[in-house]
Amino acid sequence: MTVATKISEVRQQVKDWKRNGLTVGLVPTMGYLHEGHASLIKTSVEHCDKTVVSVFLNPTQFAPNEDLESYPRDFDNDKKLCEEMGADLVFHPEVSEMYDEDSSTFVEILSDMPKQLCGKTRPIHFRGVCTVVSKLFNIVTPDKAFFGEKDAQQLAIIRKMVKDMSYGIEIIGCPIVRESDGLAKSSRNTYLSDEERKAALCLSKAVNLGKEIIANGEKNAETVISKMKELINNEPLAKIDYVEAVDGVTMNPVKEIKENTLVAMAVYIGKTRLIDNFSVK
Amino acid sequence: MTVATKISEVRQQVKDWKRNGLTVGLVPTMGYLHEGHASLIKTSVEHCDKTVVSVFLNPTQFAPNEDLESYPRDFDNDKKLCEEMGADLVFHPEVSEMYDEDSSTFVEILSDMPKQLCGKTRPIHFRGVCTVVSKLFNIVTPDKAFFGEKDAQQLAIIRKMVKDMSYGIEIIGCPIVRESDGLAKSSRNTYLSDEERKAALCLSKAVNLGKEIIANGEKNAETVISKMKELINNEPLAKIDYVEAVDGVTMNPVKEIKENTLVAMAVYIGKTRLIDNFSVK
Repeated sequence: MTVATKISEVRQQVKDWKRNGLTVGLVPTMGYLHEGHASLIKTSVEHCDKTVVSVFLNPTQFAPNEDLESYPRDFDNDKKLCEEMGADLVFHPEVSEMYDEDSSTFVEILSDMPKQLCGKTRPIHFRGVCTVVSKLFNIVTPDKAFFGEKDAQQLAIIRKMVKDMSYGIEIIGCPIVRESDGLAKSSRNTYLSDEERKAALCLSKAVNLGKEIIANGEKNAETVISKMKELINNEPLAKIDYVEAVDGVTMNPVKEIKENTLVAMAVYIGKTRLIDNFSVK
Repeated sequence: MTVATKISEVRQQVKDWKRNGLTVGLVPTMGYLHEGHASLIKTSVEHCDKTVVSVFLNPTQFAPNEDLESYPRDFDNDKKLCEEMGADLVFHPEVSEMYDEDSSTFVEILSDMPKQLCGKTRPIHFRGVCTVVSKLFNIVTPDKAFFGEKDAQQLAIIRKMVKDMSYGIEIIGCPIVRESDGLAKSSRNTYLSDEERKAALCLSKAVNLGKEIIANGEKNAETVISKMKELINNEPLAKIDYVEAVDGVTMNPVKEIKENTLVAMAVYIGKTRLIDNFSVK
C-alpha cells in the first residue's frame, strides 16, 4: 500500500492503473477511521481492482463555530486499518495541497436539498462537501465511490451532484455500522463521556422505535416522528436538533411514510452532535 | 470522424482511447464554427492523439434577455469543418441530454473575478460557463482543453476553476483569429448588417490604437482607455459596454499598464454585443 501526500502522485498512479484497464474505487474519509469506514473500504476492494482511500479533514465543510479544531485524528491507525482492509493507495494531503490560499471555486446545489435536515443548522456544510468530493473525483477519477448511509443527506446530495455534473462515477451507499449496543459508529463518538455514551443510545433506540411503529402499519409521518421525539426527550442529556421524515431522493419533508422515505435525526448529547437514520423499505 | 449525441457514447470512446494510452484534447464550442474554432481544433490535433469537439449551445450561460433563441446554428457545416480540421469525435447533445429538468448543481467562482468586465452586464454568464465546462470535462476527461483568447475573461476563469477544482487538465489558450480587415472572428458577426459590419471595425481599431499607445511608452491605464473610448465613441453605431485594463490573471482593474495586463472591451454595434481584447507582452 502506498501513501501519497501530493495530488500529482495520485494522478500518476491512477493513470498507470487505467492504462492497464484496471477499475478504481474511491473511499473519501476525514480520518479517525472506524468499522464504518472499514466496511466502505472492504466493499470497494470487492467491487474494484484498485482502492484509493482519501484521509482529509476538509475545512470548507466546517463553519467557524464547529468542531474542525477538535476533530479527532490518528493517521497511524488510519493507515493500519486501510492496509488491513486491502486498500492500494491512501491519499493524505495537507490542507495547502488541496486548497490554494485564494481558492474560491465551489460546487453547490442551488435547490432546497442542501437546506433541509443538517443544512438548517449547517448552511455551508454541503457546499464544502460537494466541493471537496468534486476535487477528489477530479484527482482520483474513480469508476466507483463509496459513502456511508449514516450520512444519508450527504449520500443523497452526492448522488444528485454526480447526476447533475455528468460525472461517470457510480455512487455506492453502504449500510450503517453500529456498536453492539446499537450506537451508530462515528468518529465523533470519541467526544462522549461515559455518561453521555449511555445517553447517546437514545438515537438508535428512536430508530428502532420508528421502524417498529412503521412496521406495525403507521403511515402518518407526524405520528412516527412525535413518538421518536418523545423517546429522545426522555433522555435528560439529549437535545434534539431535528427528527424528520423526508423523501429519500429530494430530502423534501413528507407527510405520509412510504417506500424510500428517509427518517433522519440529529441530536446533541451534551455538546456532541450525533446523527442517525433509517430508510423505509 | 464519429458524431455522438449521447454522453455514454463519448465515455465509451474515450475509455477505449485511454486504455490504449492515447491522449485526448477537448475543444468546447457553441457551434456555428468559424476560423477561430478551426484554429483551436487544429492546435488540439497537433497536441493530442485524439480530439473531441463539443458543439452545444449552452442555455445556462444565457440570461432570459440574451440571444439564446437567435444564436446562429449550422451543424452540417460544423461537422464538415471538424472533419476537415482532423477532429476524431464531435459531441453534439440535445439540451435534455446535458441537463435534467431538475438539474440544480452549479460550479461558481465566489470572488470578484466573474463580476468584472462581461460579468457586470452578464451576472449569471460565468456560472453557466463553469458549470457546462465542468460537465464536459467530466464527460470527456481530456488531457488538454483549448479555448480562444478572444473570450479572455472566460479563459482566465476556466484556468482558475481548473486550478481550484484540481482538474488534471492543461488549459491552452489560442490567439484571436481576425478577418482580413481586423474584425475578430465571432459567430455573432452574422447578426451585423452591412453598415454595422463596417462600424464593427472600431473594436479592432481601438485594440490597435491601445497597443500603439502602450508600445510608445504610456503606462497610465486611464490615458490608454480614454483614447480607445474616444475612437469607439466616434462611431455613431457603437455603444460602449466597457473598455477596461485589468490584471490578466485576477481580472481586477489596474491603474498601471504592465506585463500581463489585459485590455478588454465589449461594444454594442446596433443590437449586437461584440468583444475584443489584447494582452500586454
